Amino acid sequence: MSDLRIAVLGVGIMGADHVERLATRISGARVTVVNDFLTEKAEAVAAGVPGCRAVGDPLDAIADPDVDAVVLATPGPTHDKQLLACLDHVKPVLCEKPLTTDVESSLEVVKREAELGRRLIQVGFMRRFDDEYMQLKALMDAGEFGQPLVLHCVHRNPAVPPSFDSSMVVKDSLVHEVDVTRFLFDEEIASIQIIKPATNPGAPQGIQDPQIAIMRTTSGKHVDVELFVTTGVAYEVRTELVGEMGSAFIGLDVGLIRKGGQAGPGTWGGQITPGFRERFGRAYDTEFQRWVNAVRRGQATGDYTDGPSAWDGYAAAAVCAAGVESLQSGQPVDVSMVDRASIPGA
Amino acid sequence: MSDLRIAVLGVGIMGADHVERLATRISGARVTVVNDFLTEKAEAVAAGVPGCRAVGDPLDAIADPDVDAVVLATPGPTHDKQLLACLDHVKPVLCEKPLTTDVESSLEVVKREAELGRRLIQVGFMRRFDDEYMQLKALMDAGEFGQPLVLHCVHRNPAVPPSFDSSMVVKDSLVHEVDVTRFLFDEEIASIQIIKPATNPGAPQGIQDPQIAIMRTTSGKHVDVELFVTTGVAYEVRTELVGEMGSAFIGLDVGLIRKGGQAGPGTWGGQITPGFRERFGRAYDTEFQRWVNAVRRGQATGDYTDGPSAWDGYAAAAVCAAGVESLQSGQPVDVSMVDRASIPGA
Amino acid sequence: MSDLRIAVLGVGIMGADHVERLATRISGARVTVVNDFLTEKAEAVAAGVPGCRAVGDPLDAIADPDVDAVVLATPGPTHDKQLLACLDHVKPVLCEKPLTTDVESSLEVVKREAELGRRLIQVGFMRRFDDEYMQLKALMDAGEFGQPLVLHCVHRNPAVPPSFDSSMVVKDSLVHEVDVTRFLFDEEIASIQIIKPATNPGAPQGIQDPQIAIMRTTSGKHVDVELFVTTGVAYEVRTELVGEMGSAFIGLDVGLIRKGGQAGPGTWGGQITPGFRERFGRAYDTEFQRWVNAVRRGQATGDYTDGPSAWDGYAAAAVCAAGVESLQSGQPVDVSMVDRASIPGA
Amino acid sequence: MSDLRIAVLGVGIMGADHVERLATRISGARVTVVNDFLTEKAEAVAAGVPGCRAVGDPLDAIADPDVDAVVLATPGPTHDKQLLACLDHVKPVLCEKPLTTDVESSLEVVKREAELGRRLIQVGFMRRFDDEYMQLKALMDAGEFGQPLVLHCVHRNPAVPPSFDSSMVVKDSLVHEVDVTRFLFDEEIASIQIIKPATNPGAPQGIQDPQIAIMRTTSGKHVDVELFVTTGVAYEVRTELVGEMGSAFIGLDVGLIRKGGQAGPGTWGGQITPGFRERFGRAYDTEFQRWVNAVRRGQATGDYTDGPSAWDGYAAAAVCAAGVESLQSGQPVDVSMVDRASIPGA
Repeated sequence: MSDLRIAVLGVGIMGADHVERLATRISGARVTVVNDFLTEKAEAVAAGVPGCRAVGDPLDAIADPDVDAVVLATPGPTHDKQLLACLDHVKPVLCEKPLTTDVESSLEVVKREAELGRRLIQVGFMRRFDDEYMQLKALMDAGEFGQPLVLHCVHRNPAVPPSFDSSMVVKDSLVHEVDVTRFLFDEEIASIQIIKPATNPGAPQGIQDPQIAIMRTTSGKHVDVELFVTTGVAYEVRTELVGEMGSAFIGLDVGLIRKGGQAGPGTWGGQITPGFRERFGRAYDTEFQRWVNAVRRGQATGDYTDGPSAWDGYAAAAVCAAGVESLQSGQPVDVSMVDRASIPGA
Repeated sequence: MSDLRIAVLGVGIMGADHVERLATRISGARVTVVNDFLTEKAEAVAAGVPGCRAVGDPLDAIADPDVDAVVLATPGPTHDKQLLACLDHVKPVLCEKPLTTDVESSLEVVKREAELGRRLIQVGFMRRFDDEYMQLKALMDAGEFGQPLVLHCVHRNPAVPPSFDSSMVVKDSLVHEVDVTRFLFDEEIASIQIIKPATNPGAPQGIQDPQIAIMRTTSGKHVDVELFVTTGVAYEVRTELVGEMGSAFIGLDVGLIRKGGQAGPGTWGGQITPGFRERFGRAYDTEFQRWVNAVRRGQATGDYTDGPSAWDGYAAAAVCAAGVESLQSGQPVDVSMVDRASIPGA
Repeated sequence: MSDLRIAVLGVGIMGADHVERLATRISGARVTVVNDFLTEKAEAVAAGVPGCRAVGDPLDAIADPDVDAVVLATPGPTHDKQLLACLDHVKPVLCEKPLTTDVESSLEVVKREAELGRRLIQVGFMRRFDDEYMQLKALMDAGEFGQPLVLHCVHRNPAVPPSFDSSMVVKDSLVHEVDVTRFLFDEEIASIQIIKPATNPGAPQGIQDPQIAIMRTTSGKHVDVELFVTTGVAYEVRTELVGEMGSAFIGLDVGLIRKGGQAGPGTWGGQITPGFRERFGRAYDTEFQRWVNAVRRGQATGDYTDGPSAWDGYAAAAVCAAGVESLQSGQPVDVSMVDRASIPGA
Repeated sequence: MSDLRIAVLGVGIMGADHVERLATRISGARVTVVNDFLTEKAEAVAAGVPGCRAVGDPLDAIADPDVDAVVLATPGPTHDKQLLACLDHVKPVLCEKPLTTDVESSLEVVKREAELGRRLIQVGFMRRFDDEYMQLKALMDAGEFGQPLVLHCVHRNPAVPPSFDSSMVVKDSLVHEVDVTRFLFDEEIASIQIIKPATNPGAPQGIQDPQIAIMRTTSGKHVDVELFVTTGVAYEVRTELVGEMGSAFIGLDVGLIRKGGQAGPGTWGGQITPGFRERFGRAYDTEFQRWVNAVRRGQATGDYTDGPSAWDGYAAAAVCAAGVESLQSGQPVDVSMVDRASIPGA
């Protein structure tokens, strides 16, 4: 069986990572087309991959006859149009989060895919493919913890780019915990509140950091998330599930390195993963390999995905929109979503 | 210098522990009088300690000329009267929490002690004497974490007595995190909200469990506490301090015992401390030794305490009262306290 | 660039794993030929891989024009002949340990490859590709621990097949620590002693278990290894490096699952990886991907390997032979090896 | 019951610690007499303890009518004479290790005590009173690990005084693991070998460091100990027990402090206890409280001890003497001890 031919749209840090991943670590696929709004960047990346060329227009790249499937790593505001183009050409697409940047257009994408009667869209919530999250989910599904009750999350970054603002903490960081919650609990989030503690004196002017998100699922389960994106320490993602019959932790560090102190006693410990690429590199590999395999068998199954769907992207958008509203008001905000049953095939 | 002669009032599980502690592990003190509303119990305990006798009335025990200082391990509703009696007799007293069972009488106790111009009352918040909490406080005071920002707490019990109700989770369990917050942050708590998630199906009828407490200090620091008193697992108390320059964890388990599985792979891990006596036994020893030492040097200093004061007991009562109100309403409740400066000497 | 066409010889548990790995997770390669002395097994495996067929004779499989490179997962005693056939056909080969089953034939293989002037043979010591071992090696090479001094190793299996005997503990288990030692210390092992403690009452009759290996490198570094292959617990591999300026641990478990106890207090901990496939699955993936990449660029470099060489296989054989001698005598035995410089190109 | 009156002989770092311990943290005892070969030091210490005076001659201190029991924290070479004086005066004595500095005099002490028909001598192996060692011993005695098989120990110091030499590593450091082995395994050590790896370049000239001790018990159990006293890191004591049915670790660090890195990613970890006083302070407290309690009930029981006996001190001396011999020869040395049954009462 011949390799899947893939177009990667957007070759910034993440997209370039995906090109390298597909070219050197994923079985059954090769990158034939790349695209970026910076033409030279696309051409430089293409030059490093045998059999790959740069295409100047993202919609041309999607339509290209030499392309079987698409990876979207473009800026969020362009996703809308590009996803609809993929649906028009009936080409499977792995779309980095967000699905789209507003709730309405996300819902439109969900509906358009549902009308096609095929699953073509997968959203890149990579944590679902992390070994620890997968193991936790498997233990939960096996009933190891009885009924799940509470989820505590910590999501810390050492620093953010100067362009970051308070609402991006919700839309770019919290969105992962939104998806983790829905993944682990298998239900929707009903309401969200963003608490704004006294801010980190070391944070850039104007950004609310840390933020505490309080979420409640439709059945009343509680989730809290510490979002802290200017810690100066490292990238730390931890999740504790508390259930009726036990609890479990994800993301504790391992390994014991012992070193002498400059002054005072020696220390033990280790490095924390500095960024999401180190922390979730393996998860991305697994995500991509499973996606490639699913796309290759899609003709037979009608399902070209093996992971979070367009609906999952829409639900995340709806929760984050409510979160941004709460960030302004400081009050709990109900999440507004259409009834999934009202969209056959979604 | 002769030993301090101590009366222990209330010899239930905790009071009997304290008698044994004073008799066998604390230097410079001996128990001369015990009292309990169950006379036989008091007599049985007295019989086991050389030189100790049972006294039938708690106020007589306090007044006894053979008593230099008092330990109160009686039920909370009796504390009020007994504390005032100690003040009347100018006898130092170590009072198990709560100071009293309502805010008004706690404030009255604060005022009466302040009028005396001596510090005679210490409240038994033992976590302040736990090695890990002391170490964390020392690191914070040394500036190791920069400005403190957020505190995450977990407080779990395997089970509670049948008599327990939802408000006791706040008054008996949360009260410790209230004191820990005030101890670590050195400021008052301004507001509190109790969130009521879907309840543990294994919890007794009518009790809200788990509960999530959200507190905000006067300067805006955020504290969240998971209270879960029917876990069926063990006694788990964890605290994570997040500061401007780093974070720290208290209460993780240690030790690695590896065992074969009955079926499937082997496991590693260890036992969790089953109850507060195992978890905080050392802290109680330290608390008592330091209190005995303080009382013995009190004549010289005018301060017969070395730990949380009557004011700390009053503040905890005020926060818990607001917490119980929030438990009913589900809304955030502002904590109502008098201005400390309005009570000279408090 | 077209995919590398690979023949996998031996499709027992490990070989079948490698076929599945190459077919579904490795980029740039596909399995075109499989072989096994059990013909039906080879045919069954071939049937599961598009474009793959079974070939009855291992030497025919190596010679097959549809094969660019070879993976040897056949029994050790056949390696000798098969490796020489690979050299004769100038085909790169990834050979599961051992290189060969005796020192003389291992040396012969080293010499024959050296005469060819190309690196064609890589030995399957997969730990060199494990994330933690790679990280430790990188830290050591960066001088993080100063001069390395001591290595403590633990190598435990829950159980071994009935056919296992005492010398196989040395040849099949210890061989990994022999390679780890040479990898981390970058020097040869000069002597080895096997200590035989009182045996595990639960071990099969006639097998010495546990065994303690004491090794000394040419510069005098000390290595000890606990070999214990009937623990009944799980597969545990731990390594502690002690250096002049600090130390580091590999293989501690991570994650905290808390569960109620049947009787008595609750426990915390987690599962230990049950076997080497779970523990080192990722390492095998990395090993194979890097090997495939190296083979594909071999025409240009003359080096078709990216990992342990035939010399490493020979050195391991020499140390294990001395170990088996010590197992008999109980005395330290000097390792007998030729001078590497005497074989140009080795 | 009146307090036990204690003489502390030797008030260097350790003896002064013990005076402070007895004066401020131990119930039922007070220090009435102190002695030191530096008279001023003894007088300074005495001045800090109410009711305590300095006595110039150690034998006078022992004989003093104001002394019920003795703590020996004097240099090892003086123990011999002082212990015999305690026996002559029939005064219970807690003797810091070593019992005496040579095997013959240790045996003499054992015999003299046995002749008295009372247990008066306890040796200060404090690890037997450490929470973790006590817990491990309890689990072993409960059969949790089945038959014990192997013990791995690590004993590291950040630095040693300039006067330290290679044999002191055996006599002062290893002696603790000798006692731990005998304590946990309940049997004697039959042979010992000291392995001398290439030395730490940072160690003072002339000291062999690290050293590896290999011991074998009479029933064939294996023990290895890494002794490394110039690590520059901290005081680290770890013990791993491996049994037929599982294994357990003592001495891993706990707590997770996270800090930003100066350069590169942040780190996690914590301080390691800098010295034995921090690591084993609690164990000393427990040791002393239990010893005081035992002495106070000794009149009734004839046993004035609750811990390691003179025989334990003798056995440790015998093993260390063999260790020092092996340090010279590099060969395994059999431990030479008299048959315990030949000394009735020992």
